[in-house]
Amino acid sequence: MEFIWICVVIGLSALLFAWLKSVWICRQDPGNARICETGDAIREGAMAFLSREYRIMTLFVLVVGALLFFANEGHQRLVALSFATGAVCSALAGLFGMRVATHANTRTANAAITGLAPALKVAFTGGSVMGMSVVGLGVVGLSLLFLLYTHIWGGDAETLRIQVLPVLAGFSLGASSIAMFARVGGGIYTKAADVGADLVGKVESNMKEDDPRNPATIADNVGDNVGDVAGMGADLFESYVGAIIGSMVLGAAMGSVELVLLPLMLAGVGIVMSMLGTLAVRTSEKGNPQTALNIGTTLAGLLIAGGALPLIRWMAPATFTYGGESFEAMGIFWALATGLLGGILIGMFTEFHTAEGRQPVRVIAEASTSGPATNIIAGLGVGMMSTALPVICLAFVILIAHHFGGIYGIAIAALGMLSTTGIQLAVDAYGPIADNAGGIAEMANLGEEVRSRTDKLDAVGNTTAAVGKGFAIGSAALTALALFAAYSESAGMTSINVGDARVMAGVLLGGMMPFLFSALTIGAVGRAAQVMITEVRRQIKEIPGLMDGTGKADYASCVDISTKAALREMVLPGVLAVATPVAVGMLGGLEMLGGLLCGVLLSGIMMALFMANSGGAWDNAKKHIEGGAFGGKGSPAHKAAVCGDTVGDPFKDTAGPSLNILIKLMSIVSLIIAPLLR
Amino acid sequence: MEFIWICVVIGLSALLFAWLKSVWICRQDPGNARICETGDAIREGAMAFLSREYRIMTLFVLVVGALLFFANEGHQRLVALSFATGAVCSALAGLFGMRVATHANTRTANAAITGLAPALKVAFTGGSVMGMSVVGLGVVGLSLLFLLYTHIWGGDAETLRIQVLPVLAGFSLGASSIAMFARVGGGIYTKAADVGADLVGKVESNMKEDDPRNPATIADNVGDNVGDVAGMGADLFESYVGAIIGSMVLGAAMGSVELVLLPLMLAGVGIVMSMLGTLAVRTSEKGNPQTALNIGTTLAGLLIAGGALPLIRWMAPATFTYGGESFEAMGIFWALATGLLGGILIGMFTEFHTAEGRQPVRVIAEASTSGPATNIIAGLGVGMMSTALPVICLAFVILIAHHFGGIYGIAIAALGMLSTTGIQLAVDAYGPIADNAGGIAEMANLGEEVRSRTDKLDAVGNTTAAVGKGFAIGSAALTALALFAAYSESAGMTSINVGDARVMAGVLLGGMMPFLFSALTIGAVGRAAQVMITEVRRQIKEIPGLMDGTGKADYASCVDISTKAALREMVLPGVLAVATPVAVGMLGGLEMLGGLLCGVLLSGIMMALFMANSGGAWDNAKKHIEGGAFGGKGSPAHKAAVCGDTVGDPFKDTAGPSLNILIKLMSIVSLIIAPLLR
Repeated sequence: MEFIWICVVIGLSALLFAWLKSVWICRQDPGNARICETGDAIREGAMAFLSREYRIMTLFVLVVGALLFFANEGHQRLVALSFATGAVCSALAGLFGMRVATHANTRTANAAITGLAPALKVAFTGGSVMGMSVVGLGVVGLSLLFLLYTHIWGGDAETLRIQVLPVLAGFSLGASSIAMFARVGGGIYTKAADVGADLVGKVESNMKEDDPRNPATIADNVGDNVGDVAGMGADLFESYVGAIIGSMVLGAAMGSVELVLLPLMLAGVGIVMSMLGTLAVRTSEKGNPQTALNIGTTLAGLLIAGGALPLIRWMAPATFTYGGESFEAMGIFWALATGLLGGILIGMFTEFHTAEGRQPVRVIAEASTSGPATNIIAGLGVGMMSTALPVICLAFVILIAHHFGGIYGIAIAALGMLSTTGIQLAVDAYGPIADNAGGIAEMANLGEEVRSRTDKLDAVGNTTAAVGKGFAIGSAALTALALFAAYSESAGMTSINVGDARVMAGVLLGGMMPFLFSALTIGAVGRAAQVMITEVRRQIKEIPGLMDGTGKADYASCVDISTKAALREMVLPGVLAVATPVAVGMLGGLEMLGGLLCGVLLSGIMMALFMANSGGAWDNAKKHIEGGAFGGKGSPAHKAAVCGDTVGDPFKDTAGPSLNILIKLMSIVSLIIAPLLR
Repeated sequence: MEFIWICVVIGLSALLFAWLKSVWICRQDPGNARICETGDAIREGAMAFLSREYRIMTLFVLVVGALLFFANEGHQRLVALSFATGAVCSALAGLFGMRVATHANTRTANAAITGLAPALKVAFTGGSVMGMSVVGLGVVGLSLLFLLYTHIWGGDAETLRIQVLPVLAGFSLGASSIAMFARVGGGIYTKAADVGADLVGKVESNMKEDDPRNPATIADNVGDNVGDVAGMGADLFESYVGAIIGSMVLGAAMGSVELVLLPLMLAGVGIVMSMLGTLAVRTSEKGNPQTALNIGTTLAGLLIAGGALPLIRWMAPATFTYGGESFEAMGIFWALATGLLGGILIGMFTEFHTAEGRQPVRVIAEASTSGPATNIIAGLGVGMMSTALPVICLAFVILIAHHFGGIYGIAIAALGMLSTTGIQLAVDAYGPIADNAGGIAEMANLGEEVRSRTDKLDAVGNTTAAVGKGFAIGSAALTALALFAAYSESAGMTSINVGDARVMAGVLLGGMMPFLFSALTIGAVGRAAQVMITEVRRQIKEIPGLMDGTGKADYASCVDISTKAALREMVLPGVLAVATPVAVGMLGGLEMLGGLLCGVLLSGIMMALFMANSGGAWDNAKKHIEGGAFGGKGSPAHKAAVCGDTVGDPFKDTAGPSLNILIKLMSIVSLIIAPLLR
């Protein structure tokens, strides 16, 4: 049990690392007054959203916490503590990461005046604060709770299984709840602002991207932070924590204390190696930032594999058995390696289907020449096709991991994929910072050369965003699978038989959920964007001198519209996600609930991949045309491609990513209520 | 066993009924020379496609038949005979139904000169030939084979279970193979022609729908026949046969000979009552054709319920047991009634989401005012939302039918839904005949009044088409479920546990199939339409006097393009659908194959509903605007709505319906190979 203190120390050092990095960023020169003014507006908007979102979340956490407290008895009530701690850790990571990201954006823009290398350094350092905050808070929070509970109840295998871990699982529920708010709310926020800014500003009034005269431009940049930094952070925090807890629950099912401790220790190895990986990210003025980021993540992955091997040999029992099958310690390593490799492959597949130079995107760009309808058809086709390789990859990860380590192996594969979270999220969060820096450079008139440097950083950010989305979906899928296995373990079910009518009815209902959920979130973006469009049109019409630059746009009112809409619209999907498993479990029993999880898992993965990839491909098809292909900017093909990109926006940034949360949240809710339904 | 001769007689009388109706149609006046000329061109095009398609199918049937013959031993080899018979029956039904439909279209146009009532009579009579051919050939073919096999092997419960029914199931495989060709090939044909005709003819050259100067207009009308008459007919033939066989297999699993015979007898009741129902379809000049069709189907449904009740009381054993549970004879009736009601409800839900006057379609029409992007987003949202109610309905049908009759009850529910196939398909096939009649009236210049009558018939046809699609999906889902239950029965599996890694990997792979399949079929339409567009443009440019009416378009070359493209493009999806379950079964075993079926079933239902309903809603949103809303024809909103309709075309007429086939075909292939894999 004392090993776990090592995890606490590693987690704390990640937080120290993040703190040092943030101090370093704040010491950089934020640039001239115009840069600071723009940066302040973005930061204020982002923080205003976060504080209002957190107020609602506090209420939610109190209510659900109270429910958990009163639904349980005795020491079991500590699940409410786990839940609150998980929620607070996730919220803190989001707050800290986003605060630093909104400091890093101005400094990246300012550093771009000097050169590409310093700009990359600032942007990536900003991202790494988010990454390290997430993994640090996740591991510290989990470890301390684990130490507390084992201190109260003891740490033998049986106690862990029936007492400690069901209570600890509340941490994951807390993380999921925050992720729901951050991803869904953030997703609605960012796209309402984006669509509003684009449709009126760019299309109707012929302004450039990030034109300071566009009233919605600040809201758009705020959206990048609340959606892509805080939202993505909460999403991966949830996966990370879920994979650790799922592995621990299944480790306890194997009857071995070591297998319960191992997941936390492996997460610790991942943190250390991710920190080392971030140090390798650097580039020269002529260099390619993408290469630098790739070197960092690949190095971290290799180091993790190298570090995990001796740890597993040392900690894991030589053999363990489950369901009559026997597995060896080395099997755990292979399962971990399979997950690591699977994450890399899924990222590569995503990149292939969404990157600008590749065939799928070129097909969409070419289809744009016959108008918006063919552009849409081509994009939808690419999105559907893009599901094949990642799903085949996932199926093989499951089969291989299971071969080597049984269901424990599957959970370890999820953990393996997520062990790189620290650096993966750093790369992800780098994207919106670079994007913001470009916006600030534009709004502050820093000139062509600076803008071209930030564009270079931003272009890389688009690729990392697509790859990050693939990684987020893949890891969410494996995490949900681990939680699903933990659920059937915890529910004491030997089989969830789809030949059973109740299970099949549950499968159908579960499969329907992602469609319903997506319809709701897409509808929310549409409604919010409509209000935004009306407001932007009003400002352009009513504010004197806005278009010739003598008047000043009222950014705050647009920020306010997005904020209100996001908070209002996330309630129904959120309630649906939490209430459905509870209702199905109470009315249909554990079998139907198992079917529900299977259905939502399958349908959610498919739709998330489909929507994220078609959205990414539309985006880059537009960029491809803007780069001069098929008539370039302003051509009919470009107009058609803009249409596709607009459709893709809520697909890839709202509905798609929200499904990651849906499948995990429904799984963790089921895991939590399973003991109550037995 | 002698009862089955009653089924043969009933089936033959349905065929006699169809033959008499077709004789009646051919006796009607086909109208003036211009009408006949157009009608002949459509018929020749349709028959040319069919004969080339049937040549390929013959080859396919010979190859697969030989494989089935050599993969089995002894009497088991008769599965090849069942397979060939099923294929021939389905092909005959398609040939006969389409031949009559292409005679009925001119006569409907000509009858519309006299009035609405005679026109409806001709069109619906034409449809009823298709309906009665399908149910007649299905029941006659199955009954005769059943009599033959029981004559060879005997008819006790055990022999039926292990000898007769596995061989008889080949009939369903034959039906499925033809359905694959007819639905996928027909779907590609019809949309390649439609998109080509619309994009160049209507959008670029400002021609009206069915303008005789448009070179693709004959191909477009041919497409209605090969896609909506032959394709839909083969689809329902497959569901119909699959539901009967699935119920028989499960009846044998109950250990009761009566429960094996009952499904055939219930199908017989359905045929008789459907014939009675068709007689009730009539209208007056001022009447609403929709009401007439509704009265016919509702009456048939009620009569079936009324006829099934005494039959079940008389034939079914008072109680039967399965898996330790005991069920009563009346339970079978309730299961049947649940299926019947479920079919009606799913139709109503589909109608709600796709009909012109309803809120979802109005939302899409309104979203069209902000351009094509918002139109697309709204349509996709409606499509996703529209999955909820039908799926909830299906889940309840499963739960209720299972409650009353176990897994046998689920199969009987499928049969209940499909017992109305005779009249349901008559209503479905009426639609394209009315559509064709409108086209012929336009091309033969029959004047405004006639066109307004055919428009009235056609508008009703659009609603019946949407409802028919919902019915086809719902019944395909239940049929696949019955086949799935029959599969696990036949594979001797007590449980298909999704907690098992192999099953879960299968679920994921299966869930991916509909996406891959849709990407392929949508891509096929895009490629074929591109060739068509080029050809239409060429003709408009090169044929002298085409645009002012002095030159004549080369219809045949467009028909040829659609034919070739459809035949070429259906190969890959077809092979994929057949080969995947075989490969997964051989490499992954029965468990993984079970998971595959579960995944393809869920994902296929969801995507079929999503695509069919969004396509239908887009279509009617366009019609709503054309009716004068939001600026009417030629307004920017109309242009946006045309874009949505173009995207919806391959969704609702190619990819969506093809998924019905995919899920049934994969299920029946698995059922056939299950004994070989044990």
